[in-house]
Amino acid sequence: MRIVQKFGGTSVGSLQRIAHTADIVQAELKRGNQIAVVVSAMSGETNRLIAMAHELCTMPAARELDALVATGEQVSAALLAIELQQRGIAAYSHSGGQAGFVTDSRHVRARIKNVDGRHLRAHLEAGEVPVVTGFQGVDELGNITTLGRGGSDTSAVALAIAVDADMCDIYTDVDGIYTTDPRIVPRARKIERIAYEEMLEFASLGAKVLQTRSVELAMRYNMPLHLRSSFEPVTGTMVVQEDDVQEDNSMERATISGVAYNRDEAKITIMGIPDQPGIAAKVFGPVAESGINVDVIVQNVSEQGYTDITFTVPTGDYQQTMEIMRRLCEQMHGRHVKGDDSIAKVSVIGVGMRSHAGVAKDMFDVLAQEGVNIQMITTSEIKITVVIEEKYIELAVRTLHSAFGLDSE
Amino acid sequence: MRIVQKFGGTSVGSLQRIAHTADIVQAELKRGNQIAVVVSAMSGETNRLIAMAHELCTMPAARELDALVATGEQVSAALLAIELQQRGIAAYSHSGGQAGFVTDSRHVRARIKNVDGRHLRAHLEAGEVPVVTGFQGVDELGNITTLGRGGSDTSAVALAIAVDADMCDIYTDVDGIYTTDPRIVPRARKIERIAYEEMLEFASLGAKVLQTRSVELAMRYNMPLHLRSSFEPVTGTMVVQEDDVQEDNSMERATISGVAYNRDEAKITIMGIPDQPGIAAKVFGPVAESGINVDVIVQNVSEQGYTDITFTVPTGDYQQTMEIMRRLCEQMHGRHVKGDDSIAKVSVIGVGMRSHAGVAKDMFDVLAQEGVNIQMITTSEIKITVVIEEKYIELAVRTLHSAFGLDSE
Repeated sequence: MRIVQKFGGTSVGSLQRIAHTADIVQAELKRGNQIAVVVSAMSGETNRLIAMAHELCTMPAARELDALVATGEQVSAALLAIELQQRGIAAYSHSGGQAGFVTDSRHVRARIKNVDGRHLRAHLEAGEVPVVTGFQGVDELGNITTLGRGGSDTSAVALAIAVDADMCDIYTDVDGIYTTDPRIVPRARKIERIAYEEMLEFASLGAKVLQTRSVELAMRYNMPLHLRSSFEPVTGTMVVQEDDVQEDNSMERATISGVAYNRDEAKITIMGIPDQPGIAAKVFGPVAESGINVDVIVQNVSEQGYTDITFTVPTGDYQQTMEIMRRLCEQMHGRHVKGDDSIAKVSVIGVGMRSHAGVAKDMFDVLAQEGVNIQMITTSEIKITVVIEEKYIELAVRTLHSAFGLDSE
Repeated sequence: MRIVQKFGGTSVGSLQRIAHTADIVQAELKRGNQIAVVVSAMSGETNRLIAMAHELCTMPAARELDALVATGEQVSAALLAIELQQRGIAAYSHSGGQAGFVTDSRHVRARIKNVDGRHLRAHLEAGEVPVVTGFQGVDELGNITTLGRGGSDTSAVALAIAVDADMCDIYTDVDGIYTTDPRIVPRARKIERIAYEEMLEFASLGAKVLQTRSVELAMRYNMPLHLRSSFEPVTGTMVVQEDDVQEDNSMERATISGVAYNRDEAKITIMGIPDQPGIAAKVFGPVAESGINVDVIVQNVSEQGYTDITFTVPTGDYQQTMEIMRRLCEQMHGRHVKGDDSIAKVSVIGVGMRSHAGVAKDMFDVLAQEGVNIQMITTSEIKITVVIEEKYIELAVRTLHSAFGLDSE
């Protein structure tokens, strides 16, 4: 098999960790696989470099920030190549540009336009191990660019596609995706196989193991991802297309793959504002301009020409959003702004719910039986999310996990 | 004027020093000059990176070492560009490859093959300030290479030539070349102008301000160098071609430009070895193989088929060389090996001595009058070197400096 292995900052965070990472690469080679490696910067290094730039200048130019931080991955790639060579492995480091990554010119948040994999394919066929800097490329003029948040995962997936790899292994500090948080539900199970769509919902709910961008890319090119631990040599979670999820020949798969939650949300309601066309844009315009992410939005039916809008934001943005809303309410002659930062969000996720009616009803029933009041509801094709009082979150997660048959025996 | 400014590791060694370096760049721009900058890595950074590689592996591959240490200059170039931009200057960092430096593939000690200056010339003509990483380039396959010892000076000179600069300013922690060491001769004078050939002799004698390679390159293309202090805004020493040294319209220039010395030498004599063809090669072969630099060599006339060979080596290599010589003497049935590590070397240097007979005689006379015994003599076209007892070194330097008219008034 041809495998692209991606190691994050902690996996190359010290010389000891680099040696351990080399162990993993070496083990896969011994199994007869062809390996290309993608690495992040040593943990802390990117922040160290950015801090220096910011000490010189409050708004350093994006082009120079890219040239600066791109050195982080170059260092870890060279060090890992040295460690592999020392074990007799023909490993060579490649910067993003050398590896064929061409991006657009949006410094600090560039998008990959194309990866020319010919060069690295030839190296792989010659039995070599290319060690590639994640997170970066060059634009068409040869300027160094970085991909922004989650860039290294995306680099790994893009490289896997470009060199026709059979799969892309993402090594992290967790050993896979669980049906829910094992700290809350000790009987949570590791998910063996999960569909890309489900993984995207998990990721957007705070399962920080994989960045959304990289999952979207893998899904578009049908590149299997293997999320696994860099600490323990156990099988992790495979992220694959929906048709490949079901492996055990059972006729039907579980309706729900997992239960996710997020405590880090606050709820704001602006009440009694005139129900005119364009009112939502008026409300969310100033919030978006402040760079605040709005999540769940619910607008009630209009009563006598007035309406209420409720939405959630990350807890960290709660105070600022409240102030924006109070000003807005006054301008619009609204009645009142109400806020609540002791809420939480719980979701059930599963591609199976497409074919199973009544998942929503089941979910609401289960919560009602436990006396948990539902404040807001949103649904997507493969996810149902409710907002509840924060104090009920463990109870809700545990109950739903059990009710949808996810508990391990 | 178009000027390439080169700043070493201490000039970019901290964010404070980077700000100070930006002051210097800004001042030259205000004088209406076009400026390109070449920087070294922040002081200590290259050693830190190499130490990590050596901790992983006693003999890290040269290709990977280059990829690793090249990040050092990339960091300082980006930081200086950020600092300059913050002052409203259109400065952009360029790696060696981006700046057009193409080298051979001898990693860790690459030689520049060509610098394509078109790109940076266009930037300079647009009023921009390119900030270029010294010490590095790419080979014809795009692999990152470094130039080895003294590389950044050489980068600066090569860039100055490639962009048709009028001069290359080398900023260091001294403010120029002196007629001799001011710690020994308080009346030593700063040399305003010095010929490339003289600078080469000074450099080879331990005036560590400029690497020989960069002077040779500047001489070949007649690129004026300005050696100056990054701490004090004073004129330093111009290194120019011989014809341009004399500026003050005096008919004749001084015969001697300066007096150099080196205490860090030891003398070894192998006595009574058979005087056969190839004997010198036999003696110096094992020394060269051990990587030891032999400096002065004197072979006495043969007496009854036997000869003595005396030579000097750096003090640090003295013990090892003595052992090699003892083994060799035994093998060759020589009589005896004698060593002395309390010697020193003193030289008078000047292109003027080409046209003045009798400089050697004057030098020997002066030393004889002071009772200084001369142990060895070597001469080149513009330099006379003698080896003397170390305890006489200050006396010899002072006396020669005065006798050749170099004392300041």
